[in-house]
Amino acid sequence: MRASDLLVPYPTVTLATPAIEAARMLADADLPGLVVVDDHGAPFAILPGTQVLRLAVPIYCQDDPNLTRLIDEAAADVFIRELGDRTVRELLPPQPHELPVVSPTATALEIAALMARTRSPLVAVVDGAYEGVVTLHGLLDRVVPA
Amino acid sequence: MRASDLLVPYPTVTLATPAIEAARMLADADLPGLVVVDDHGAPFAILPGTQVLRLAVPIYCQDDPNLTRLIDEAAADVFIRELGDRTVRELLPPQPHELPVVSPTATALEIAALMARTRSPLVAVVDGAYEGVVTLHGLLDRVVPA
Repeated sequence: MRASDLLVPYPTVTLATPAIEAARMLADADLPGLVVVDDHGAPFAILPGTQVLRLAVPIYCQDDPNLTRLIDEAAADVFIRELGDRTVRELLPPQPHELPVVSPTATALEIAALMARTRSPLVAVVDGAYEGVVTLHGLLDRVVPA
Repeated sequence: MRASDLLVPYPTVTLATPAIEAARMLADADLPGLVVVDDHGAPFAILPGTQVLRLAVPIYCQDDPNLTRLIDEAAADVFIRELGDRTVRELLPPQPHELPVVSPTATALEIAALMARTRSPLVAVVDGAYEGVVTLHGLLDRVVPA
């Protein structure tokens, strides 16, 4: 079983996509994360959904649960204000991580090892151009005996 | 908006649950992770789905993509063999992490900050006893404007 057998289409965002639109995509389509592509359509980063939250939470709250607890205004208002005019570019970690990308010939085991190592529930499949992803659930569905 | 408004029922596993059964739960119910409870039913660990894969990949393959590429036997066979008689206990990281657990009165912002900090798409809600979870998607659905 190869990446080409496990591949599914998956939407992408660019570095210039508004963060609030990325959050809406995650929410509406129940996606496990974002595939960020560069100007040439090649995967540039794969972000877990939790990292979109990072930008939605005011900086002064991120590491201080006590401060966060004091804020009881409508969460939706805080999210819109914080995400505001920001873009996906600002969601990226300061240090680039290993990019979970494989070729269509990668084996199921190779994909599993990459997901485990990068802790990414998404692996992009690239064959010259971006073709889609293998998801953790798509992989488990095929390799875990019923 | 509080954790009690966002709470959904969510299955748990114990330290003694077979790893293969945990993997099957993730696959069948499309869960973002596992809530591991102790003998008293209290959350002991919350594991992202990718960490279940860690145990399914032979040790000698985890950090060596070249070795992994050589293995082209049926992935399902490798998974069953590797997960074999192992239990959820063996999936746990050697160092305990911050446990993403809140009380029912936690605010949406508090939950978002905790998810971002612990990189967990699941937060358990505990009020004396385990009550269920808030998921990243459940949270985004409520706080991201349509």
